[in-house]
Amino acid sequence: MNDSSKIRVAIIGATAYTSREAIRWLLRHPRAQITALCSRREPQPRIEEIFPDLAGQISMRCEPIDPPAFKGRADVAFLCVPNGLAMSLAPQLLAAGLRVVDFSADYRLKEPADYEQWYDKKHTDLENLERAVYGIPEFYREKIRTAALVANPGCYPTSAALGIVPLVKAGLIDPQDVIVDSASGVSGAGREPKPEHHFPERNETFEAYKVGEHRHMVEIERTLDPYVRGRKSSVIFTPHLVPMERGILSTIYLKPVQPVSVQHVAEVFGKTYANEPFIRLRQTPPRTADVARTNFCDITARVVKGRIIVLSAIDNMVKGAAGQAIQNMNVMFGLDETTGLLG
Amino acid sequence: MNDSSKIRVAIIGATAYTSREAIRWLLRHPRAQITALCSRREPQPRIEEIFPDLAGQISMRCEPIDPPAFKGRADVAFLCVPNGLAMSLAPQLLAAGLRVVDFSADYRLKEPADYEQWYDKKHTDLENLERAVYGIPEFYREKIRTAALVANPGCYPTSAALGIVPLVKAGLIDPQDVIVDSASGVSGAGREPKPEHHFPERNETFEAYKVGEHRHMVEIERTLDPYVRGRKSSVIFTPHLVPMERGILSTIYLKPVQPVSVQHVAEVFGKTYANEPFIRLRQTPPRTADVARTNFCDITARVVKGRIIVLSAIDNMVKGAAGQAIQNMNVMFGLDETTGLLG
Amino acid sequence: MNDSSKIRVAIIGATAYTSREAIRWLLRHPRAQITALCSRREPQPRIEEIFPDLAGQISMRCEPIDPPAFKGRADVAFLCVPNGLAMSLAPQLLAAGLRVVDFSADYRLKEPADYEQWYDKKHTDLENLERAVYGIPEFYREKIRTAALVANPGCYPTSAALGIVPLVKAGLIDPQDVIVDSASGVSGAGREPKPEHHFPERNETFEAYKVGEHRHMVEIERTLDPYVRGRKSSVIFTPHLVPMERGILSTIYLKPVQPVSVQHVAEVFGKTYANEPFIRLRQTPPRTADVARTNFCDITARVVKGRIIVLSAIDNMVKGAAGQAIQNMNVMFGLDETTGLLG
Amino acid sequence: MNDSSKIRVAIIGATAYTSREAIRWLLRHPRAQITALCSRREPQPRIEEIFPDLAGQISMRCEPIDPPAFKGRADVAFLCVPNGLAMSLAPQLLAAGLRVVDFSADYRLKEPADYEQWYDKKHTDLENLERAVYGIPEFYREKIRTAALVANPGCYPTSAALGIVPLVKAGLIDPQDVIVDSASGVSGAGREPKPEHHFPERNETFEAYKVGEHRHMVEIERTLDPYVRGRKSSVIFTPHLVPMERGILSTIYLKPVQPVSVQHVAEVFGKTYANEPFIRLRQTPPRTADVARTNFCDITARVVKGRIIVLSAIDNMVKGAAGQAIQNMNVMFGLDETTGLLG
Repeated sequence: MNDSSKIRVAIIGATAYTSREAIRWLLRHPRAQITALCSRREPQPRIEEIFPDLAGQISMRCEPIDPPAFKGRADVAFLCVPNGLAMSLAPQLLAAGLRVVDFSADYRLKEPADYEQWYDKKHTDLENLERAVYGIPEFYREKIRTAALVANPGCYPTSAALGIVPLVKAGLIDPQDVIVDSASGVSGAGREPKPEHHFPERNETFEAYKVGEHRHMVEIERTLDPYVRGRKSSVIFTPHLVPMERGILSTIYLKPVQPVSVQHVAEVFGKTYANEPFIRLRQTPPRTADVARTNFCDITARVVKGRIIVLSAIDNMVKGAAGQAIQNMNVMFGLDETTGLLG
Repeated sequence: MNDSSKIRVAIIGATAYTSREAIRWLLRHPRAQITALCSRREPQPRIEEIFPDLAGQISMRCEPIDPPAFKGRADVAFLCVPNGLAMSLAPQLLAAGLRVVDFSADYRLKEPADYEQWYDKKHTDLENLERAVYGIPEFYREKIRTAALVANPGCYPTSAALGIVPLVKAGLIDPQDVIVDSASGVSGAGREPKPEHHFPERNETFEAYKVGEHRHMVEIERTLDPYVRGRKSSVIFTPHLVPMERGILSTIYLKPVQPVSVQHVAEVFGKTYANEPFIRLRQTPPRTADVARTNFCDITARVVKGRIIVLSAIDNMVKGAAGQAIQNMNVMFGLDETTGLLG
Repeated sequence: MNDSSKIRVAIIGATAYTSREAIRWLLRHPRAQITALCSRREPQPRIEEIFPDLAGQISMRCEPIDPPAFKGRADVAFLCVPNGLAMSLAPQLLAAGLRVVDFSADYRLKEPADYEQWYDKKHTDLENLERAVYGIPEFYREKIRTAALVANPGCYPTSAALGIVPLVKAGLIDPQDVIVDSASGVSGAGREPKPEHHFPERNETFEAYKVGEHRHMVEIERTLDPYVRGRKSSVIFTPHLVPMERGILSTIYLKPVQPVSVQHVAEVFGKTYANEPFIRLRQTPPRTADVARTNFCDITARVVKGRIIVLSAIDNMVKGAAGQAIQNMNVMFGLDETTGLLG
Repeated sequence: MNDSSKIRVAIIGATAYTSREAIRWLLRHPRAQITALCSRREPQPRIEEIFPDLAGQISMRCEPIDPPAFKGRADVAFLCVPNGLAMSLAPQLLAAGLRVVDFSADYRLKEPADYEQWYDKKHTDLENLERAVYGIPEFYREKIRTAALVANPGCYPTSAALGIVPLVKAGLIDPQDVIVDSASGVSGAGREPKPEHHFPERNETFEAYKVGEHRHMVEIERTLDPYVRGRKSSVIFTPHLVPMERGILSTIYLKPVQPVSVQHVAEVFGKTYANEPFIRLRQTPPRTADVARTNFCDITARVVKGRIIVLSAIDNMVKGAAGQAIQNMNVMFGLDETTGLLG
């Protein structure tokens, strides 16, 4: 099973939706192979029993989560466990010689105070928090290359940051008057059945949730702050749920610091993303269906009555999770960034 | 709130989907009023908190299930509690002077042995079981009129019986070679969240379940048996789940005892249902959308290669549950059968 | 068929989705009856052939659109024809002695210049344009009472105005910094099949359309202008499409003129809508499913980082079209406003 | 762009849903490359404009359909044009030295009389009709290897044949008493917008269509006939539409010639498909979601009251169209059959 030319991947927490998505993409990745799947469930299940769609493509029993056991068996861990647990496992995985792409929020917020405020617990791994690199390759490619620990971004923040950062960086907009109105497919809510996601409740309805209270609001702000001089950004974030499986569309309302044309906005995006394989700048408004099951982010901009409106669409499971993790992995291991992610 | 010209209805087990549907219909019924809602939940919730869509139309706190307490406060009970519990409550409700429309399966199968076999428990109210009337008004209108206890039929059996009984009765088909292939919306699975009905699991998929093992299989047979001379019917029943809220379509394959034309089949249906307000005989195949939120059953027949194919569509929540209950109530209390159910 | 105590309704343009919805509600309205259905189709179809779900509830052949022919046969016309055609028919209907509820946009914008700019044609009935009353009963009840011609509002503007006007009226917000981010079910796009609404294209996707260009943007502004002193409002409007049949949720971002608490905002809504039967003020964010097939508008407010966020949900086919038309009709004819619309 | 180790594929009729699916799979196929896309549209569109989801993965302008022009530029043509047109193009493509996988029905029915009866036109290419091989590799692998022209099977017939043929072959069932009750996602209806597939009409409904009249009924029979001794098979086929994008589930009712156990049925399937990479025999009923976007066919069998019920699920766009075409191509060109189709 070992193939020395391949990156060996251990997926820790293999029964989540994001893990399934990672498995799917890794199965067709020409330079990676899955060498371990781990689960806290007892007894450990076979992955193809958890996800019957994977049968015939992978046949592997999950093993307990025992970081030292991966030493020499994996080059990178995809850490797909809940917030809080990740920061107790990451140091052990790093100690075992693995590089880590963490799907949780544990290493995304550089300020321990932010983490404590929004996640209701003290951060227990400040050392790695400081060294962790926020994993949007379009912005942090160089740092990701050598990072031991990459904080794989949240789905909403990915869609928002890709739509806002270029304009903040160009000094075009007021970073304190940012509204991100997003809508997501239901896979983003995870695999745990809940009354509000019971099919007859979630089908044929549209609603906002955690208005102004979602943890991704501060994460979006932190993606902007590095580009803001002298003060912090302020973002209002309203997530909504769409009765569909996957996809996020963020409709972003920005206030230019001085009047701006849509051509100029388009130019800024065009220059920023000229060589980015996963950013598609579009004339017409993006559709989540067009990015579904791809690692693309589709972006369109408009100027309406003096405000810039940026529309940014991703698949929350791909560019918003597993695809971006693989993109990060490709960068970390010196592969072409698109390996296994196009076609 | 009391209005002596109105039928007073108590809904026992008010937090089920079928109860919500009954409430909706009763709110617009000109000759009925809801006088009590009961729930086993503690503390008893307000119904408009359970079902926020009902706010502004009804404001009522549920009360504990205490049958003697309804004496003089209700004329009829809609019994919407689980199988097994219903047969312990029905006798008490009858004793308190109420007539009962039971939504559970407890009084549908006349043979205690059938009940024991399919519901894994002994029947504990044989007396009322014998007196109970199976509540398809199209077939048992006269008995329902004076019944103290009506067993409101299952959703699948309603769609199947309405499509098969006329042909069995006419001696047209072999009652031992009946295949009922049905597909239902997900509301039929109830309000309890389950992993298999979690939105991302249930959306965009189609599947059969309990193939040849569903309890409604025997109930369908028992709707046919009275019209079969000398032997019992034999039905193969395969239910499927459709990613939609409501509706059942039964595609029924029947073997004529001798060659028959589609005209003759249509004629039998035409005669049987000539004066039925809720049966719509159609030329084109029925669509569940056309019966959604109505008490109609749409029926179309075809003859293909010597077999009769009957297509029968209902709304599982209406003609398959709450609407039929109200239709039964109308019959029981001498109202026009369509009162509150048309328009 | 005539019943002198009933309002006689003619539906002009009977084959639209909004007409079907009007028919459904009128069929259960205790004080109204449909006396004519009209269509431009030739030959005129039976309505139950166009909408098979209506079979068994109404049986009526459409007739050609001939306004003088309704004289004495109808008290009110629901005018459900395209923009532009409505303003040629309304004067004739008024001349024939009918009062008119116009579902089109022809009489919604008081300024002919607005109409010309946004609808690309000159307004040809300026006299009635001036007299027409904009039909949101919550704001214009008194004028509607005696109006000969009511301009039934657009679906998006209804959801937006009900969420914004109370705050503008109270002087709480800056009417020139209003963002309305809305999402609608697909029935709002009408019954005409289009490539972008073909099921496989529209299913499982979410997207914005006509960003900053939708005609309802100006209509929303015009609902606010009467309450703004000295200047006009300025609204940015972004509609989205949700893969569901019906429902609109508007997420509205408003800038207070001075710091405001969510309690104060709630108080303003509470006072404004204290006696409104169709406005439900909620603590939790509204869900379109909760207003589906009802005439309710559910409203929730939040204050986030100094901005007011108002969430407003309606059924685009009911409070956003046919239900509001009937509510207007009830007001026009002196009935209790909720007649036929509750329960 | 040329790569001598790769199979060069021309897709004729590139704007169909099946073509898009073929493009998606070919883009990730390590041993194939698309060298031409053709369309009858004028002017010829760029494929990424027709299917914006493909942007960033392929950039190619369609060219007119000119078979001689593909000589030396393609090794195989995927012929995705309407029935009737295919039989005029296939001979030209063969003459130009290409092998052909035809997605239409033109070469599926060996008897010209069948074609004429069901497709309402005379077959005009009898020579190739005789030589064409029906492309279910699980049954006709050897012939496909050397075939110049492969008739890629219909979606329903694929799901049905894979579920029935092993039992016919084993002499287990009566080939004249076969009922195939199938349900399909809406992509099977093609890309042309039609009133009945307009989102608000197709959403939230389930219905049968072309009951006993669908052209795939005879195609299913012809997949069985070769294994029936002395007489022809007789199949009743009822297709249904499910409000989802993709997937077919066939629920197949078969009559054993003598009593049979479910174990024996499972054994027959187990032996037949022991080495088949794309057939997954399951204990639990198959779900279309589990085969979606895969080339798998999931099969489960039951015996109920003496009848065998086979449940067979595929993705109509993959194993039912483009995936099977690529599987056929792999066989035709001596590749491992799973190349580009797993993972």
